[in-house]
Amino acid sequence: MSAVPLDHSGLETLGAAECRALLAAAPVGRVAFGFDGEIVVLPVNHAVDGDAVVFRTGWGAALAAADSRGPVSFEVDGYDEAERTGWSVLVQGRAERVYDDPTIARLEGLAVRPWADAAERPFWVRVLPLSVTGRRIPPHGAA
Amino acid sequence: MSAVPLDHSGLETLGAAECRALLAAAPVGRVAFGFDGEIVVLPVNHAVDGDAVVFRTGWGAALAAADSRGPVSFEVDGYDEAERTGWSVLVQGRAERVYDDPTIARLEGLAVRPWADAAERPFWVRVLPLSVTGRRIPPHGAA
Repeated sequence: MSAVPLDHSGLETLGAAECRALLAAAPVGRVAFGFDGEIVVLPVNHAVDGDAVVFRTGWGAALAAADSRGPVSFEVDGYDEAERTGWSVLVQGRAERVYDDPTIARLEGLAVRPWADAAERPFWVRVLPLSVTGRRIPPHGAA
Repeated sequence: MSAVPLDHSGLETLGAAECRALLAAAPVGRVAFGFDGEIVVLPVNHAVDGDAVVFRTGWGAALAAADSRGPVSFEVDGYDEAERTGWSVLVQGRAERVYDDPTIARLEGLAVRPWADAAERPFWVRVLPLSVTGRRIPPHGAA
């Protein structure tokens, strides 16, 4: 019925351009990282800057994860309850705190306004992707 | 203005009962775990069973994470773009594959119907919480 590639679990595999477009369009994504022996998953307002995903944060676990250069992932998804369908895009990589002022000035221009108080989120973190993958549940009955 | 406790980042801290209600009501959540040196985050249809979060899965990384008894988290969130507000609940714990038939029969009764093809998701995984925490962005101007 379709030339769209499916993964081992029967989901459509999204191409790089579509992953990037979905990442850029999502108003909220989730950053995930290891901290204190557990996995933390936190929603953030983000932007796409070149190949990277950027967001603001305060003192806390996300900043510590960036500084430690451990594995960090970023996920966006969307779903339609009525149609029982959905998609997700996963960025896996490493994060780093952004220190240099010209870059910070440029990121400020991306107009990432955290919904929570921006004054308490003075730091920029950049997730540098090692891989970007996306999946979509095929239209009902297509798989 | 409010007696609701705020965390260090200025977010409201949700109580256990509210976290549980939000977990149970969300149609989709995200399971996160370490795999092959990176963090995986995948949306799933889930249910709450006692203190645990349960979902169906197939052969793959989520099942491997459960079998390895490594850290597994489960996250649900909701947001309102117009109001620039949102909430999230994070379950941190360990996961296990459900083997015993009486429990599987009971879980089948919870009517967790994966949106993707259930035939390819024959296994039940249970996330046993070590902690459940929730946060909400305070109403605009309240913080």
